[in-house]
Amino acid sequence: MDVVRNNFASLLPQIKDDIDASDFVSFDTEFSGLGQNRHHNLFDTLEERYKKVKDSCLNYAVLQVGLCFFYKNDDKDADNKYRCKSYNFYTFPYKVNGVPRGVVSDKVFSFQPSAFHFLAGHSFDFNKWIKEGISYMTLDEESALMEALSENKEAASQSNNSAPNVPDEHKEFINQVRVDLTEFLADHGVEKLDLEPCSAYRRKLIYETIKSMRVDGIKTSTCLTSEHSSERYISITKISLEEKSKEEQDLINEAVGFSKIVQHLIRSKKPIIGHNALIDIIHIFRHFISPLPEELSDFKVMMSELIPAIFDTKLIAMDPRFRDIISCTALNDLYQTVQREPFKNIPVDIVNKSNDGEMKEASYHQAAYDAYITGMCFLNMYYKLCQKLDSVNFHSPTLLQYQGRINMMHSFDFPYLDIARTQSISDRNNVYHLTFPSEWSSSDIHQLFSPFGAIQIGWIDDTSAFVGIKDGSLAKDVEQNLKDSSDSNFKITPYLRYIQSQNDQQVERKRQPSGSNHGEKHSLSPRGQSLPSSKRVKVSS
Amino acid sequence: MDVVRNNFASLLPQIKDDIDASDFVSFDTEFSGLGQNRHHNLFDTLEERYKKVKDSCLNYAVLQVGLCFFYKNDDKDADNKYRCKSYNFYTFPYKVNGVPRGVVSDKVFSFQPSAFHFLAGHSFDFNKWIKEGISYMTLDEESALMEALSENKEAASQSNNSAPNVPDEHKEFINQVRVDLTEFLADHGVEKLDLEPCSAYRRKLIYETIKSMRVDGIKTSTCLTSEHSSERYISITKISLEEKSKEEQDLINEAVGFSKIVQHLIRSKKPIIGHNALIDIIHIFRHFISPLPEELSDFKVMMSELIPAIFDTKLIAMDPRFRDIISCTALNDLYQTVQREPFKNIPVDIVNKSNDGEMKEASYHQAAYDAYITGMCFLNMYYKLCQKLDSVNFHSPTLLQYQGRINMMHSFDFPYLDIARTQSISDRNNVYHLTFPSEWSSSDIHQLFSPFGAIQIGWIDDTSAFVGIKDGSLAKDVEQNLKDSSDSNFKITPYLRYIQSQNDQQVERKRQPSGSNHGEKHSLSPRGQSLPSSKRVKVSS
Repeated sequence: MDVVRNNFASLLPQIKDDIDASDFVSFDTEFSGLGQNRHHNLFDTLEERYKKVKDSCLNYAVLQVGLCFFYKNDDKDADNKYRCKSYNFYTFPYKVNGVPRGVVSDKVFSFQPSAFHFLAGHSFDFNKWIKEGISYMTLDEESALMEALSENKEAASQSNNSAPNVPDEHKEFINQVRVDLTEFLADHGVEKLDLEPCSAYRRKLIYETIKSMRVDGIKTSTCLTSEHSSERYISITKISLEEKSKEEQDLINEAVGFSKIVQHLIRSKKPIIGHNALIDIIHIFRHFISPLPEELSDFKVMMSELIPAIFDTKLIAMDPRFRDIISCTALNDLYQTVQREPFKNIPVDIVNKSNDGEMKEASYHQAAYDAYITGMCFLNMYYKLCQKLDSVNFHSPTLLQYQGRINMMHSFDFPYLDIARTQSISDRNNVYHLTFPSEWSSSDIHQLFSPFGAIQIGWIDDTSAFVGIKDGSLAKDVEQNLKDSSDSNFKITPYLRYIQSQNDQQVERKRQPSGSNHGEKHSLSPRGQSLPSSKRVKVSS
Repeated sequence: MDVVRNNFASLLPQIKDDIDASDFVSFDTEFSGLGQNRHHNLFDTLEERYKKVKDSCLNYAVLQVGLCFFYKNDDKDADNKYRCKSYNFYTFPYKVNGVPRGVVSDKVFSFQPSAFHFLAGHSFDFNKWIKEGISYMTLDEESALMEALSENKEAASQSNNSAPNVPDEHKEFINQVRVDLTEFLADHGVEKLDLEPCSAYRRKLIYETIKSMRVDGIKTSTCLTSEHSSERYISITKISLEEKSKEEQDLINEAVGFSKIVQHLIRSKKPIIGHNALIDIIHIFRHFISPLPEELSDFKVMMSELIPAIFDTKLIAMDPRFRDIISCTALNDLYQTVQREPFKNIPVDIVNKSNDGEMKEASYHQAAYDAYITGMCFLNMYYKLCQKLDSVNFHSPTLLQYQGRINMMHSFDFPYLDIARTQSISDRNNVYHLTFPSEWSSSDIHQLFSPFGAIQIGWIDDTSAFVGIKDGSLAKDVEQNLKDSSDSNFKITPYLRYIQSQNDQQVERKRQPSGSNHGEKHSLSPRGQSLPSSKRVKVSS
């Protein structure tokens, strides 16, 4: 079911109930750009990778979030099968009418044409996104909104708003406005007063004048005289205190928008299922919760406190027990796979399909559909791993080993990011740093290392790379053997020694602050990643 | 008429003819963000303003360009009235299939949600923009494309492509590809060979293998096995040299796209009419011609060479002769005005209206419609200024005084930017720099200056501003009079003395490179804006 601007308020209570009634929640997001994977290195430390992913996500917008709530029916007559409710949220950061200036700035977002083109090719409706997308904000922005609204109220009730300095040429005009407004307020038969169209400067004077008159029980708005004109006038309407208070609550609900759902999800502590979820999670945090911490350790603290029970289906699909039955872990291929033997392909009905044929058009890369098939992959892999069709037991050893672990793409020795545990770098005794002539291609490197079996290359630039030897037992004597070579147009250094020399150089550079600071640096400081309690983000209940 | 991906190639020759047959061309553009006017200061020098506008435009995309070609029919039977052809180009920087890697990078663009929302509210179709927008590139990118294509051809004809180093586990597979390909080439009855789906690495090996085999007369492409899969295979098709050459030409036309139109317009030297055109022109340059020069003087050279005959209807609308008959110069209001007495409201038929009702839906802020009404405003204002209904004479004094002058928004003493002439700053004897307590509002400044008549304020920050006195004859003795005041919480400095002290401080800072470099600086170095000939951009004919 699509959730957009005009049905969000009415659906919100139901969606909160669905969250509370669910056993687990699968999700997916679509955003306006994918970032620059080419900056990733196979041998990035987790800290380095976190910063790269965070920075590459920086200004992209979230266009759509799909949430799928899986539950079993408590009803005695029920068939004990899972059902789900699926929601497709369009999210667009429009300026909500009535939000005081300065609370949410008119941010600038980024997009990659290739990302827009890809989504448009999968039937994403950009007009709907822009015209009907739901607002959202971070927790800090929500606080600022509440503060601004209460400050406005205070200011209105205080008597220190002096009448504006009206230049001579506008005095007559403003005096007339005072007279009109006073008559309007005295006349109980009239509900609305439209002032004459006037310049922006005069409208500013009018607003200051009204403020200084400390009138209760009215609301003002600026209107266009016609669609084809840029002329504007101020309209004043009488309004009761109850109406005003309700309007303010509606305003808050509209402006906080989708973030209300995320906040409720966090409070519910329900298990959350994503597929290759690192980028999704990073977007969800920075748009709907709070700016991202600089350091990975702080991000882990945030994750552990707010979304401790996260699972990643791409990581589970690489379980050794699936080695021979799952060949491709891309979401759409995985979904095809789990619908075939030896998986059970248990169907799960989507109970809130709308009648307008919307779900018929559901397709890959629509967020709600991808959320649904992520949940289906999770469920079918779970059934296969525990060899039975019971309710999902999130306390089972099968699942506990995957809790809080997010798949890492393109990493030599970090298959996942564990949000709750310290992950030290391995000794990387089988990794070497290599420099070589710029003419070299990967073939030349493979050739050089051919005596040591299969390798993986992490390019740094066109004259250097890291090389990892897959079979650690073959990785001894590499330096010795290659040194013997008569060829001297390359230089090979064991990983740890290379990093140490980089760190030494960095210390040296810091001593000489005028020196330049080029190149990719791998830090290998001892990481006692105990989870510091600073910079905590709280979602109040 | 909408011009999109699938009708662009067929319309291109007609549009070029329409350019050549036109007497003048009006234009408008829509972009993904408006930049940050709040950084503009009323007292910016032109050099400062150019840099601010340029920087604020930096990453926004052009979504739509409207061009309207006004002409008179040579036909003897004709009624000697102007007619026009109107085209609405959707422009979207998609990756054109076949453009070699690295020629056009997958750039990241910016958007302001408020700009998208505004356009969507004026019926802009974002799905059409993304799915059907025409490609474009700068002149440098076009050169890079041509070079890359000819390098590809050279590489294919040379014999130094050695066979790739194939790792053992892929040898059997690659050998089979060689056998299949050789058989395919020998079999004249078969036109197409689809290889088995395989991994990205194997596809890379296949491409290297085919390259090393130096096969002429084939083209290769990578295809998805199905819409719902991420599996890919390589397809090989036989193709004649003529077909190949035609495909290459089609590729260039598709990829250079809308820039072909801009190039033809530039070569035609037709008068170009815009409304408040600075931002439009800056976008047109950087997306379709070349990156913008750092310095205003170089930008003026570029403009004078490429678009010497530009006119700005917002500037013309401020002609003193219109003082009492044009009250608002915003485009839509201006168009309403010129359709009424004392203007002649001469109708101009759009001869290429399409039958699908597209122009019925035409509305403000659709680029072609805004281009059309810009031309209509121009024509009606011209008729009024020269008091007759002849053909537009671009050599008349009436128009020559406006040629090459682009309207400047929000400037105290630069009503326009003149692309062909040096514009020195006035002495600004009626301008003062003022510092004051942060509690001050504009009312306090008006109060302070009340003895000197009307003023204009250019805020720098919350404790300083420039103040200009409109009536220069009242601007004497300001310093003396305000110094006599017993109030001492402000400081007033004549403009020139303030700038001089700023420049002195800047020189001082440069001598002490560790010093910080804060605040807004107005440079007032003597600007002998002779037009240097460096960095010229040529559009070959």
